[in-house]
Amino acid sequence: MIGGGSWATAIIKMLSDNISTKEIYWWMRNTEAITHLQKYKHNPNYLSSVEIRLPENNISGDIAGVIKQADYIILNVPAAFLKETLKGVTAEHLKGKKIVSAIKGIVPDENQIIGEFLNEKYGVPLSDILVISGPCHAEEVALEKLSYLTIASINTDAASFFASLLQTRYIKTNVSDDIFGTEYAAVLKNIYAVASGICHGIGYGDNFQAVLISNAIREIKRFVDAVHPISRDIKESAYLGDLLVTAYSQFSRNRTFGNMIGKGYTVKSAQLEMNMVAEGYYAVSCMHYINKKYKVDMPISRAVYAILYEKHSPQIEMRLLTEQLN
Amino acid sequence: MIGGGSWATAIIKMLSDNISTKEIYWWMRNTEAITHLQKYKHNPNYLSSVEIRLPENNISGDIAGVIKQADYIILNVPAAFLKETLKGVTAEHLKGKKIVSAIKGIVPDENQIIGEFLNEKYGVPLSDILVISGPCHAEEVALEKLSYLTIASINTDAASFFASLLQTRYIKTNVSDDIFGTEYAAVLKNIYAVASGICHGIGYGDNFQAVLISNAIREIKRFVDAVHPISRDIKESAYLGDLLVTAYSQFSRNRTFGNMIGKGYTVKSAQLEMNMVAEGYYAVSCMHYINKKYKVDMPISRAVYAILYEKHSPQIEMRLLTEQLN
Repeated sequence: MIGGGSWATAIIKMLSDNISTKEIYWWMRNTEAITHLQKYKHNPNYLSSVEIRLPENNISGDIAGVIKQADYIILNVPAAFLKETLKGVTAEHLKGKKIVSAIKGIVPDENQIIGEFLNEKYGVPLSDILVISGPCHAEEVALEKLSYLTIASINTDAASFFASLLQTRYIKTNVSDDIFGTEYAAVLKNIYAVASGICHGIGYGDNFQAVLISNAIREIKRFVDAVHPISRDIKESAYLGDLLVTAYSQFSRNRTFGNMIGKGYTVKSAQLEMNMVAEGYYAVSCMHYINKKYKVDMPISRAVYAILYEKHSPQIEMRLLTEQLN
Repeated sequence: MIGGGSWATAIIKMLSDNISTKEIYWWMRNTEAITHLQKYKHNPNYLSSVEIRLPENNISGDIAGVIKQADYIILNVPAAFLKETLKGVTAEHLKGKKIVSAIKGIVPDENQIIGEFLNEKYGVPLSDILVISGPCHAEEVALEKLSYLTIASINTDAASFFASLLQTRYIKTNVSDDIFGTEYAAVLKNIYAVASGICHGIGYGDNFQAVLISNAIREIKRFVDAVHPISRDIKESAYLGDLLVTAYSQFSRNRTFGNMIGKGYTVKSAQLEMNMVAEGYYAVSCMHYINKKYKVDMPISRAVYAILYEKHSPQIEMRLLTEQLN
């Protein structure tokens, strides 16, 4: 496991609670957190109620060492920090290993989803790439609330095997071959959660929220069908479910971020106040760039971009958006 | 307008705020409410903050008189009371008039949606039948929160005309030709809102809720495609949006009812406590009957039926259901 946040902690918990034999190694940047984890068996910063039952030596700040010992490498840092995290990691280190993206974001500057980035920059074959997708808030994993994960890979044997490592009393899994659609949907949903928050902050109600989300899933479908036209049902949990849990849940930081923007905070003050990265903020900029190529009609995403990056008034931009929804 | 509840009051408000010339007549059973409305210009029982600006004589307890004066008759009583309400109304009374169903329910004993019932029992031609669908909680109309309605009819000219009577600053409208799909979806969503409430009451979290709803919309699609196979996008607001607002909103009485069942109330005590009819309770029994003919795979609807009518344990039934979702 590469990364020390709440989603990483949640997946460590699933892997530990799952009964099949395996060895788990965990890398994180924060050395104080490593020491704390080794000593007290809890992550001091995220999901701190979760007991972590790993041997001390399996938690480490040596990324190359951790990668060397693993067959499956789960990337689980914010997309914005992926390149920095992988400094010192070479294509040679990753050779022959399966790489599992739990990131749900786009690599900044590169404007690539994680699978594309690993494939192009590290020569990882697409058949060695897996994606973990929700709907799954880490906070509910900590509470052992029943959740469903989708593991996507064009290598469905690898996806099924990895899925079997995550299943517990409270985790059920689906397997999919739609690696691109799953990753893009997971990125896009953060943008719609920001949109949902902005509308809530302005004062739109539940009736409008339902219209917004039913338009958002159509926008997701249009985009992923354009980028990767295979047969898929966008109403499955990995797409629609993931959108719903993010746009409707109290745990969503993207929605919280949007809400502050709708209430009149600037982007900078909202980020300072939250002290967390809202992935949707970066995602909408990357998607704006990527969609220059595909030219898919994405009015909601465009409105969020205009508000966050072109300093358009949230009130006016959303008012204009309401004319384009149905 | 036939009916005196909150949805009737909300539509009266839209029609009154809409600027086109029209005369509005309003029938309700409750004579005290009529007197109150005539004197104080507010419905004493529902959305009582809304000012009703109708002439005194336009509000009446004489259903045949009200119907006689109208070109468009909006049926807006609980489905369970429709037959009783229409006692004394004959096919002759309805002849040549457009009938707009705002009911979202199934006629008990008949096990028919409103359109079918009017067509068979009153000889109303299908081209004279319209359906109003949300996503639209009446409470938010009272607050003038932006909402979108869909008006469905195989007579799209009539649907467009009626839609034009509802549009206001806070109401936008879509027109559809899918009268059966729209009515069935509006009925079914109440069942899924009950399911959603039951799961919440038992203790399932947001992660599972998202899976439940993404399965529910697929269940709706399977059913309406079986009953009335035309081309439709189930992700439109009248289907998916209506499901979302009902299943996720705090205003939903179906969700509230389900929540009490999940917490261990009996059906009877939950109904007494709420002092309101949860349409989903009746709908699931009717759908159970109707689906004997179509045999569509509807595991969520079946689970709700088993809990409410066969006294199955909510915990066990939902646990079994989780094995059938994905």
